[in-house]
Amino acid sequence: MLAAQILSRLQTVLGDAKKPIPLHEPCFAGNEWDYVKDCLDSTYVSSVGAYVDRFEKALQDFTGVKRAVAVVNGTAALHIALKLAGVEAGDEVLVPALTFVATANAVVYLGGVPHLADSDDLTLGLDPVKLQAYLEEITAPREGGCYNRFTGRRIRAVVPVHTFGHPADLEALQEVCARFRLVMVEDGAEALGSFYRGRHTGNWGQSAIISFNGNKIITTGGGGAILTNDEELGRQAKHLTTTARQQHRWVYSHDQVGYNYRLPNINAALGCAQMEKLPEFLEKKRRLAGKYAAAFQSVAGVRFFTEPAFARSNYWLNVLLLNDKNCAERDRILEESNNQGIMTRPAWTLMHQLPMFKDCPRMDLSGAEGLEARLINIPSSPNL
Amino acid sequence: MLAAQILSRLQTVLGDAKKPIPLHEPCFAGNEWDYVKDCLDSTYVSSVGAYVDRFEKALQDFTGVKRAVAVVNGTAALHIALKLAGVEAGDEVLVPALTFVATANAVVYLGGVPHLADSDDLTLGLDPVKLQAYLEEITAPREGGCYNRFTGRRIRAVVPVHTFGHPADLEALQEVCARFRLVMVEDGAEALGSFYRGRHTGNWGQSAIISFNGNKIITTGGGGAILTNDEELGRQAKHLTTTARQQHRWVYSHDQVGYNYRLPNINAALGCAQMEKLPEFLEKKRRLAGKYAAAFQSVAGVRFFTEPAFARSNYWLNVLLLNDKNCAERDRILEESNNQGIMTRPAWTLMHQLPMFKDCPRMDLSGAEGLEARLINIPSSPNL
Repeated sequence: MLAAQILSRLQTVLGDAKKPIPLHEPCFAGNEWDYVKDCLDSTYVSSVGAYVDRFEKALQDFTGVKRAVAVVNGTAALHIALKLAGVEAGDEVLVPALTFVATANAVVYLGGVPHLADSDDLTLGLDPVKLQAYLEEITAPREGGCYNRFTGRRIRAVVPVHTFGHPADLEALQEVCARFRLVMVEDGAEALGSFYRGRHTGNWGQSAIISFNGNKIITTGGGGAILTNDEELGRQAKHLTTTARQQHRWVYSHDQVGYNYRLPNINAALGCAQMEKLPEFLEKKRRLAGKYAAAFQSVAGVRFFTEPAFARSNYWLNVLLLNDKNCAERDRILEESNNQGIMTRPAWTLMHQLPMFKDCPRMDLSGAEGLEARLINIPSSPNL
Repeated sequence: MLAAQILSRLQTVLGDAKKPIPLHEPCFAGNEWDYVKDCLDSTYVSSVGAYVDRFEKALQDFTGVKRAVAVVNGTAALHIALKLAGVEAGDEVLVPALTFVATANAVVYLGGVPHLADSDDLTLGLDPVKLQAYLEEITAPREGGCYNRFTGRRIRAVVPVHTFGHPADLEALQEVCARFRLVMVEDGAEALGSFYRGRHTGNWGQSAIISFNGNKIITTGGGGAILTNDEELGRQAKHLTTTARQQHRWVYSHDQVGYNYRLPNINAALGCAQMEKLPEFLEKKRRLAGKYAAAFQSVAGVRFFTEPAFARSNYWLNVLLLNDKNCAERDRILEESNNQGIMTRPAWTLMHQLPMFKDCPRMDLSGAEGLEARLINIPSSPNL
């Protein structure tokens, strides 16, 4: 019953689909051709070229951060942001169990241990109240940082994820981080265009990251960025992501182990054109979210997720939440909608349910588990 | 005097330059724009799309390896190739001191220790005779592999670099590897189009890597590939470089810590067009090398590097080698040629001269040191 009702509401909003409707597809209706062609004609398609600077400037202007560093993808951005947060081998980093796997993987790249934290229904992101109570229980203040009394390891950082683009409760999380001397790195992979208390997300952590993968609100093919208001950290991020090479006309020398993470110029050219369209994409996506909200208002047993009062969300991937008692319907809804050519998907498999993270330290994850059982992502492209 | 003579020969070969002549610039005279435009129009610019498969197929057909896996760049390719070679934290990996920093960095990404080896004048690559003598001296055969008697660490792999595109002596190195139970991974970042004993490089190691950075013989903006004749290893390379996600229509699940290293489809589109031009680029580059060889034949004190009998080189970056007694002229030659708009550069700073690798274990490196002191790269673009 519920499956049929949901499908019918989706069809009402999305219209009669001639071909399958993806969850999120890019839209290249601006200067994409012109900039990419210009980039090819210049022959500067790779690690040299002006589009990278221009793209970084556009990101800075839009988000209000002092420094944006364009890199090959969001995972690379997280890797470097966590490294610059001081995460070292053996450190624990608090990440939500409800996230894309890259958040936890990036911790492992540094030899760290993901420590899994719970999410709440209000934001779909880290639950600050629960996190604080948990940290009070498991940590002991010590010289040099915050230590896990049970594992003996240092807890270095917290990575709130702006889940499906919806801002986590950043002020509350900032207070928890200050209290426990933890560095906050915002995983805003999905949150370009999402604001928290009137200011763009990414301005609360020591740094933040964005992704420009093909399914994101804007795309560069593959791409990502590190954002920060700390200019020295921004300088280091640029240096580390460009093989830590020292400037010289012809000498090739490097002062530390660096990474080949710079965004190629041709991908940045695409990004420059996409940034010009971002305000339009955001407006269209809000309009679509509004239609979904209206369409699902009267359907019992399911709720369309809307931004909390403190947030203005980009509604990157729209979310339906089933009531607890309708969880069992989730897979049928996924099956039927996908069979009808309306792409839907559940939340990611929770981190502690993946084999490589099953033994990671974790708090009670009933919030994330409840969300995972009830959540369905529905088509969200700006052109819908 | 030598500086003036060299400059004059360079000018003879390169003609009267209206604008500065770079070391190596890409050439987009084929289907580049058509394929990139087609890719944009399809909207599949990112992690889904047919150009990646097509590019991998083109690489397989050209190199003769069973499996090519396209990734974001050569460094990422090395990281995964070494991981699949079984390099683990604490292992040593033999790499030439004379290489681009990525070769050594990739070892560090896995928690390994670069062990620096010497190069010879015949190939500019690893000296197999010296390597064998050195390994006899420092290793002890033990259960489970080859161990360094002095550090106690396992030596897991050897990474011959095809320096500036010129093939290392692969058969001789293969014998050394077999004898000491070491895995060989060919760093062919610069060697697309280079053959060893009639067969494309990359067919001798357990795996090999290529780079498609902007300065390479073909470019995808940023890009790289892992090559292997081991189909199971190829399957693992694809899986690991695509976040280790398990195939499912909508479930997001991953069976191990993976990497976000897949080449975006838009970069692969560029690569497909470039591969069509590769034979032409190779022919033009050989012709240029021939002109250089002729021009420098009669200049005393300097030698134009040519391929040894067992190799057919792509002459990616052409090399002048000064005689020992003319080393002191190198910097003047670099200075004058660059000031005249003819870009030249020395070899990379040797690995043991970089701060992060200065304490790495190493053999006598007099071969590499001699080469570094005498070597000058000169302009090598196919359009010259």
